[in-house]
Amino acid sequence: MNTVVYDTYCEDVIGRANVRDTPELVSYYKDLERLGTAALWTVANKIEPWEPKSASVPMLWRYRDLREHVLKSVDLVTPEQAGRRVIYFENPGRKEEAAAVGWLYSGLQVMHPGENASAHWHSSSALRFIMEGRGAYTIVNGHKMTLGANDFVITPNGCWHEHGVEEGGLPCIWQDGLDIPLANAMEAGFYGVHPDLHQAIGYPVDDAVSIWGAPGLTPNGVKWNQNYSPLFKYQWEPTYEALARYSKAADGSPFDGHLMNYTNPSTGGPVMATMGASMQLLQPGFVGKAHRHTGSFLYQVAKGSGYSIINGQRFDWQEHDVFCVPAWAWHEHVNASQTDDACLFCFNDLPAIQSMGFYREEALADNSGHQPVIT
Amino acid sequence: MNTVVYDTYCEDVIGRANVRDTPELVSYYKDLERLGTAALWTVANKIEPWEPKSASVPMLWRYRDLREHVLKSVDLVTPEQAGRRVIYFENPGRKEEAAAVGWLYSGLQVMHPGENASAHWHSSSALRFIMEGRGAYTIVNGHKMTLGANDFVITPNGCWHEHGVEEGGLPCIWQDGLDIPLANAMEAGFYGVHPDLHQAIGYPVDDAVSIWGAPGLTPNGVKWNQNYSPLFKYQWEPTYEALARYSKAADGSPFDGHLMNYTNPSTGGPVMATMGASMQLLQPGFVGKAHRHTGSFLYQVAKGSGYSIINGQRFDWQEHDVFCVPAWAWHEHVNASQTDDACLFCFNDLPAIQSMGFYREEALADNSGHQPVIT
Amino acid sequence: MNTVVYDTYCEDVIGRANVRDTPELVSYYKDLERLGTAALWTVANKIEPWEPKSASVPMLWRYRDLREHVLKSVDLVTPEQAGRRVIYFENPGRKEEAAAVGWLYSGLQVMHPGENASAHWHSSSALRFIMEGRGAYTIVNGHKMTLGANDFVITPNGCWHEHGVEEGGLPCIWQDGLDIPLANAMEAGFYGVHPDLHQAIGYPVDDAVSIWGAPGLTPNGVKWNQNYSPLFKYQWEPTYEALARYSKAADGSPFDGHLMNYTNPSTGGPVMATMGASMQLLQPGFVGKAHRHTGSFLYQVAKGSGYSIINGQRFDWQEHDVFCVPAWAWHEHVNASQTDDACLFCFNDLPAIQSMGFYREEALADNSGHQPVIT
Amino acid sequence: MNTVVYDTYCEDVIGRANVRDTPELVSYYKDLERLGTAALWTVANKIEPWEPKSASVPMLWRYRDLREHVLKSVDLVTPEQAGRRVIYFENPGRKEEAAAVGWLYSGLQVMHPGENASAHWHSSSALRFIMEGRGAYTIVNGHKMTLGANDFVITPNGCWHEHGVEEGGLPCIWQDGLDIPLANAMEAGFYGVHPDLHQAIGYPVDDAVSIWGAPGLTPNGVKWNQNYSPLFKYQWEPTYEALARYSKAADGSPFDGHLMNYTNPSTGGPVMATMGASMQLLQPGFVGKAHRHTGSFLYQVAKGSGYSIINGQRFDWQEHDVFCVPAWAWHEHVNASQTDDACLFCFNDLPAIQSMGFYREEALADNSGHQPVIT
Repeated sequence: MNTVVYDTYCEDVIGRANVRDTPELVSYYKDLERLGTAALWTVANKIEPWEPKSASVPMLWRYRDLREHVLKSVDLVTPEQAGRRVIYFENPGRKEEAAAVGWLYSGLQVMHPGENASAHWHSSSALRFIMEGRGAYTIVNGHKMTLGANDFVITPNGCWHEHGVEEGGLPCIWQDGLDIPLANAMEAGFYGVHPDLHQAIGYPVDDAVSIWGAPGLTPNGVKWNQNYSPLFKYQWEPTYEALARYSKAADGSPFDGHLMNYTNPSTGGPVMATMGASMQLLQPGFVGKAHRHTGSFLYQVAKGSGYSIINGQRFDWQEHDVFCVPAWAWHEHVNASQTDDACLFCFNDLPAIQSMGFYREEALADNSGHQPVIT
Repeated sequence: MNTVVYDTYCEDVIGRANVRDTPELVSYYKDLERLGTAALWTVANKIEPWEPKSASVPMLWRYRDLREHVLKSVDLVTPEQAGRRVIYFENPGRKEEAAAVGWLYSGLQVMHPGENASAHWHSSSALRFIMEGRGAYTIVNGHKMTLGANDFVITPNGCWHEHGVEEGGLPCIWQDGLDIPLANAMEAGFYGVHPDLHQAIGYPVDDAVSIWGAPGLTPNGVKWNQNYSPLFKYQWEPTYEALARYSKAADGSPFDGHLMNYTNPSTGGPVMATMGASMQLLQPGFVGKAHRHTGSFLYQVAKGSGYSIINGQRFDWQEHDVFCVPAWAWHEHVNASQTDDACLFCFNDLPAIQSMGFYREEALADNSGHQPVIT
Repeated sequence: MNTVVYDTYCEDVIGRANVRDTPELVSYYKDLERLGTAALWTVANKIEPWEPKSASVPMLWRYRDLREHVLKSVDLVTPEQAGRRVIYFENPGRKEEAAAVGWLYSGLQVMHPGENASAHWHSSSALRFIMEGRGAYTIVNGHKMTLGANDFVITPNGCWHEHGVEEGGLPCIWQDGLDIPLANAMEAGFYGVHPDLHQAIGYPVDDAVSIWGAPGLTPNGVKWNQNYSPLFKYQWEPTYEALARYSKAADGSPFDGHLMNYTNPSTGGPVMATMGASMQLLQPGFVGKAHRHTGSFLYQVAKGSGYSIINGQRFDWQEHDVFCVPAWAWHEHVNASQTDDACLFCFNDLPAIQSMGFYREEALADNSGHQPVIT
Repeated sequence: MNTVVYDTYCEDVIGRANVRDTPELVSYYKDLERLGTAALWTVANKIEPWEPKSASVPMLWRYRDLREHVLKSVDLVTPEQAGRRVIYFENPGRKEEAAAVGWLYSGLQVMHPGENASAHWHSSSALRFIMEGRGAYTIVNGHKMTLGANDFVITPNGCWHEHGVEEGGLPCIWQDGLDIPLANAMEAGFYGVHPDLHQAIGYPVDDAVSIWGAPGLTPNGVKWNQNYSPLFKYQWEPTYEALARYSKAADGSPFDGHLMNYTNPSTGGPVMATMGASMQLLQPGFVGKAHRHTGSFLYQVAKGSGYSIINGQRFDWQEHDVFCVPAWAWHEHVNASQTDDACLFCFNDLPAIQSMGFYREEALADNSGHQPVIT
């Protein structure tokens, strides 16, 4: 006979629930269930943990393992069939949510010259980080942007968007990042296909960068009231130059080296309401200290090689590898080179976490701020 | 032999994934799985739905059914054992999350005169709505507040708080509302027990109301930089009077009658970063029209009786009943009385939904704005 | 023969200009003048003072002196001729600007039952504080408000407004406060007469108070994007009650006793962009300490009697008296009664001063915080 | 015998004051004066004009006229004597305020290699626009910035600052712009000399540009809560490049061509709370249309030549010339070259005007938007 147990989560700590099952109580619990209710003390310690324990596990996906499979998809499915040819990262703890970490989806998309995907919109926010190829472009609400390696581009919640690769280009691979799992969790996922399947291009190519991409300057008389950045594209060259200058002018963080956030130039805030993104430079020989914080983070190695220790586990990374840091996981980054800098692109759900008041952080106090590595 | 099927979510619509399983593809999918990845097109239509479909189901909990069970808990467990004696609402679609609807937890708590619970804090935001009894109080960060029927009080994220009933009072029942499931989903749940188990009271009783509870007036020189309201308590009498005045001065909403949001007087915004609350008055004979929107809503009937039609299902309610409207569910409210007004207290996750840019709404166009009722 | 002197402002302090006139320099200065220029060092010490020295002088206007003259204007001019029958306060240092203090205009207006003024708008912001009579009303953008003693009402920049007294009322006197001098100084003064001379009343009487005048509650779905308060009227009774409660619940300020700012309930900020207003309660026997700050302040005694020491000069006041505190003038307030509280209404230009970053304050350190009184 | 006239401002328009002097009224007016008061209707039409009439007159100061006089000051006074060797612009309508236009002060400062001025602070906000020379620098709160031609730098309200020219440099001339008249008008002018006469340099040279001067990127973890831009220096080259790109990507304004505002990268707002600045590019052959708006504007020609028509008067300008547009003055700009673009640097009091709600604008409707020129 199957006996339900209700006192699994008891803790013998003052201020915590500690009620052992008795026949009378079990009978009472069953009465409550019939009314669509339950007794809080049977689950209180479970649902009010002392600190977060992420459902996601630290993971690293090696580009050298994935690249051939990504390319193979071109032979296996057409863009028309697949919608988008994407191999996505499936965190072992988040398979049901199709998430790479936390509530963030990410995958590698491939497109051949002359291909393009049909235009659509969704209430998920999306971003892309270009990895290889030539001739890729994205169109967002009629603004066409050309894309090169390590360029970062956003296609925000509610915007019509479509991607393609120019006829004379080379096969392109990029990383997609979306908050699809978050939008679904919030029960706010909407999707629409463009009635014409493609948008008209209504502006000069790369006009967003020309209009909004100047340091300390914004166009007069151009009102911007959206909750996302009007500067849809953030190019690699000025970003890397900015990091190089920054790293010479200031000390940076003991945890993250020199980290700059991609921002909305009309507010100074994050690029989108649910997802932020950053690029950080680890100087040659940089050995970061460990800290942990809420929020989920997905990294791509934009330059160089090194390793990160995440909850005591070491992950060696090189260019184009992708790895994640789950919420409240200890993590520290190391640039393995004494001569070259390393750059990590990252996107995360910090804007959502912070607007909800859920951000907390802690530096590792022990062992000079370094985790013991599990071997 | 167990055969995995990957093409469950195919849609034969341009712009949607429509890839049928072949042996070659299935083999490819299995290779991807070994790498901690998967093909987006196998799940794209699932994770990018055309519109939200809530995991929660519309529910009504009748107070006349629950009251005796709530009171019985007093005989069954002590506050020391249970932490808090609460019977919580368990939505059939959200049992795992211990949620009444969406990511919102709620329950009915009972406390006898002379009892009090130990002080604690958590990163969940909490609120209480008083239902019956006399002598209840809450202490938040050293501010003690006395509580009467239909009073609304908040105990925000990060604040020390504790509840009790005065010696000479009567047994008290109130509704708790918390974003525990949201904090857990965001992997940001922290909990702490007060080192002294109880707080010192550092201010005159009900000082928050005296300092911040005046219409169109705020104290000079009192800086308030928190993301929650300094007016912890919202009393029933001035709230009901405000609604009565409002209902005489303006037309109100065809969907919600006269609805006022509890607000943070230092900003005009919601009372807390993740949860909002409101009280609405349905005038005698009010027959609301149907609309739907994102966000999860939990109602308590503060006054009167009537019914709501939620996704075509009729729920009759009277005083103290609790019911929920899941995200994107059609709903319309009716005051069954031609002579008395009805008042609905509601709390919801709108502040979170809106800050993430996930709010959308739609009025029912057909049938004069009324749903056909499923019988 | 008239000799121009250029070295009037010399200071023999390092870092300050100290250039004595020579024939060569004087010749040079005259050359510069012909080019529409001048040498900074001839005026630097004048235009960059060590601290502000207000052009306004502390003043008190006694109502018992003014009342008969205000009433007499009814016999002398009609509303049609005069536009408005107002006796305004003319600070001896600000005659040219028609200012009571700093850039603030104020006067006492009288109106007889059955009279009304034609509707107009201006880019100045305006406010009124009712002193005596019965039946006064104001209409702002179609919202009619009835006015009683000590009520405070705003007619913001750009709004159509008009005033009147009902047929069956009593002669009414109120204080007007406007930023006319500021609008003129900023060269931004506009004025328009209503094409119909009077507005249509488009809402229930006093609807603004019914909709926005509730503590900690705002109407749902009523968007408010203006830079002024939607709660046009602030009534005396709830204001006085609020101050009484506040004074029992908190210590208040050593300088100002218990002071509450009238606020915009949709933001928690000031009622208008250029002018703020407050009501403060001095408890029986209150003896305030001296401080000084930037910004210009005009007070009206709403209740009680006492005195203020302003830049060492004592001003005794009683109900309905008006007095000013110029920018950076030391001031301290005393309630002369040991049994009754005193209330001071005040309006000021703090919102402008603060938005421009010009606010600074200083407590008097010497003599236990009290000024020596000049006798 | 001297007869005072009180009815100077009468207007025979309904809704305006129109009271003619009588012996009885004049006697009444004199009584009022003795009480420190006056009758509003004697001045109402004066202080409430239909629209603004600036006290400033349109002016152009030619650099070829001024340069030798500026240089001559080096022979006449030392920096120690003069504080700063500056020839300032004196608008004929604003001599008393030492203003170039409205409440804005401006002048040309000269400094020789090896010279430097002592460090000071003031509550005025200041900016500099570099015109010629080599080796100029500014130090703001310990941040040293090197300055080249057409660079723009701010020294905000309350910051310690000092200027100098390096030993091996060339004589430098720059334009200073300050809101000294505004700070004085607001009776908020404070001034302090640095106790050590010079600041310690606490950061790498030009660190502000390295940290905050990247397009769409901000440093992580660097909190900025000041009401001014952390990017103190805005360099000419990236500014000109930004304008060139902008002018190819968007249409610009019919009035101003392609105008970009210097902004605070942490907010997207103006560089300081009281003064904004911009650089605009007039494409070859650009013929602007006329408009007018509130706010006072001072231009410097950064590149090219052309003319502006201001209130019907034509002003021809070339590089380094300075001209002003008073509040509510019609103005239109023309680039006289068909081959080269022209660039106008401008600073103004728009942030103050806008935060006070005083901004209004109007396009010229007649004559295809062009003013008749007074000859």
